[in-house]
Amino acid sequence: MTVTKAYAATSPGSGLEAVSIERREPGPHDVEIAIEFCGLCHSDVHTIRQEWGSITFPLVPGHEILGQVTRTGSAVGLFAVGDTVGVGPMVDSCRECDSCLEGEEQYCSNSNTDTYGAIDARNGGAVTQGGYASSIVVDENYVLRIPEGMDHASAAPLLCAGITTYSPLRYLDVQAGDAVGVIGLGGLGHLAVKIAKALGATVTVFTTSPGKTGAATDLGADAVVLSSDPAAMAAAKDSLNAIIDTVAAAHDLNPYLRTLARDGALIQLGLPGEPMPAINPGTLISKRLAYGGSQTGGIAETQDMLDFCAEHGVAADIEMVAATGLNDAYDRMVAGDVKYRFVLDTSTL
Amino acid sequence: MTVTKAYAATSPGSGLEAVSIERREPGPHDVEIAIEFCGLCHSDVHTIRQEWGSITFPLVPGHEILGQVTRTGSAVGLFAVGDTVGVGPMVDSCRECDSCLEGEEQYCSNSNTDTYGAIDARNGGAVTQGGYASSIVVDENYVLRIPEGMDHASAAPLLCAGITTYSPLRYLDVQAGDAVGVIGLGGLGHLAVKIAKALGATVTVFTTSPGKTGAATDLGADAVVLSSDPAAMAAAKDSLNAIIDTVAAAHDLNPYLRTLARDGALIQLGLPGEPMPAINPGTLISKRLAYGGSQTGGIAETQDMLDFCAEHGVAADIEMVAATGLNDAYDRMVAGDVKYRFVLDTSTL
Repeated sequence: MTVTKAYAATSPGSGLEAVSIERREPGPHDVEIAIEFCGLCHSDVHTIRQEWGSITFPLVPGHEILGQVTRTGSAVGLFAVGDTVGVGPMVDSCRECDSCLEGEEQYCSNSNTDTYGAIDARNGGAVTQGGYASSIVVDENYVLRIPEGMDHASAAPLLCAGITTYSPLRYLDVQAGDAVGVIGLGGLGHLAVKIAKALGATVTVFTTSPGKTGAATDLGADAVVLSSDPAAMAAAKDSLNAIIDTVAAAHDLNPYLRTLARDGALIQLGLPGEPMPAINPGTLISKRLAYGGSQTGGIAETQDMLDFCAEHGVAADIEMVAATGLNDAYDRMVAGDVKYRFVLDTSTL
Repeated sequence: MTVTKAYAATSPGSGLEAVSIERREPGPHDVEIAIEFCGLCHSDVHTIRQEWGSITFPLVPGHEILGQVTRTGSAVGLFAVGDTVGVGPMVDSCRECDSCLEGEEQYCSNSNTDTYGAIDARNGGAVTQGGYASSIVVDENYVLRIPEGMDHASAAPLLCAGITTYSPLRYLDVQAGDAVGVIGLGGLGHLAVKIAKALGATVTVFTTSPGKTGAATDLGADAVVLSSDPAAMAAAKDSLNAIIDTVAAAHDLNPYLRTLARDGALIQLGLPGEPMPAINPGTLISKRLAYGGSQTGGIAETQDMLDFCAEHGVAADIEMVAATGLNDAYDRMVAGDVKYRFVLDTSTL
């Protein structure tokens, strides 16, 4: 065992506080990573605040992890000490089901192992602890290589927010010249805009905030539509091939579906805590539309995403946060007050 | 003008009664068709009973038309007198929009012309009159060729019910070995079963009627699941690649979505008059599912469908109806009391 510094929720309502946790000794296929940065994901807040169900305390969140390899197990073949690597929302999966064999480990039929808060069934059964920590030990098959030349802090959020938006854009086969809409301009949304632009698409941002128009344009959006303005929504009718919906609160999708052209698809990424309004099937039928969902991406696709982002200069817009600022940062995330992703500097732990 | 016998609704609540209507003289690209059979579609009932909005009387319904060419316009090149041909739910479209140019005339951006009840903007502006008639005049580009050897009466329903189920199965690229579910065992559903089987799929029929198990098996279904039985629905979890939903009344799709495997799709064909229950986005997200809609098919695809059905021996199971029995047939359709499609014998007009 190795003891490492971390920030954890230690009891219901405690907020995050400094703790020491143990990491396993690297097994034959494990790499030990000295964590440099960890992005703050909305999932962290929902989980720690037990909005998605009860958790086992203490719990260290964080699944946008970037750092350097410090030790390798005897059989590790993919990484060497000193490599800059990343870890996203999963650290293991069954490796036997169709999804795992097809490189879609995020849909593992036997439950992949979340980076934090999961029973690590294939590694002794302890609860996994995430990346708000100085180090982590992960099987090499669930570790990503960070391309040379990427800024480390702004690359960290790609490990979850990046792959979560990249994967559906690729699944929908978005091509140069396609028209893509993005609903919501937060951590996921701002990366969806950048990645869609890098794929060659024309990008329309839907926002409920008139004040976000300039910010959307700064990110590269070609158009901004105020979704509360019926005339603006009507003007966008039948114009888009795909919509990436990053909003995790209940909202009526019907006005957005009307902005899709024939054969278009709206992909929802966020899971609201309350029921969504019903879809009007007539809108789907009249234009052969699809309403779908998607979650993160497989390991191979995450590597593709990192290589793509390095090649196209895509990274998150970030605000650095020290360990002592984590609880304030959570409140600001809930309030939507961050452009666009907090990243924890683990040297402050 | 040519006068032809027909059955029309002549006033609100009148039911269908014998009338004489006029057909235009064939223009250069028109063919005149002596109608032999016309299938009865649920759309006919909804339209005539003004459940989908007010209509102009008199109105002759019918868009599953099969007959023989009796006259051809001077420039007709696709058909000759004596050919056995069909007409489906549209008789014209703009021919200029992307959908028309791509052979997806059913999604014409400038409104295709419904076979009945539509303003025939490109042919003088009269209201189109459908196939419960002795003859019809249609532009050759919207006429289908009935393959030799097909039974005429049981081929007629393919022109709407057949293409409406064939098109989404093709769009989803259903292949031999795929698992397809069919919700509802009426006119559309029974053809969805036959076509999916002909494509090589394993077919599961969902029904709320325990009494339909034998009927589904007779049609070729490999399995029947009583959708009101939670245990049976749970046993079908994650098993299907595609579901064709033919039910046009509001129903909860969430139990069906749970029977889809990763990357599966549920395609709704029927448009309920009342709102559908909301979809749980978590189900979509957890398996990258799609919920979509589809309507009929393009002209080229309709010809493909007819050729496919001829090759694979697919035809509708029908009950013949005489003109004087049309109103009773409508009541029986609403009650679901037909196996599985009524076909009007126009010799009885």
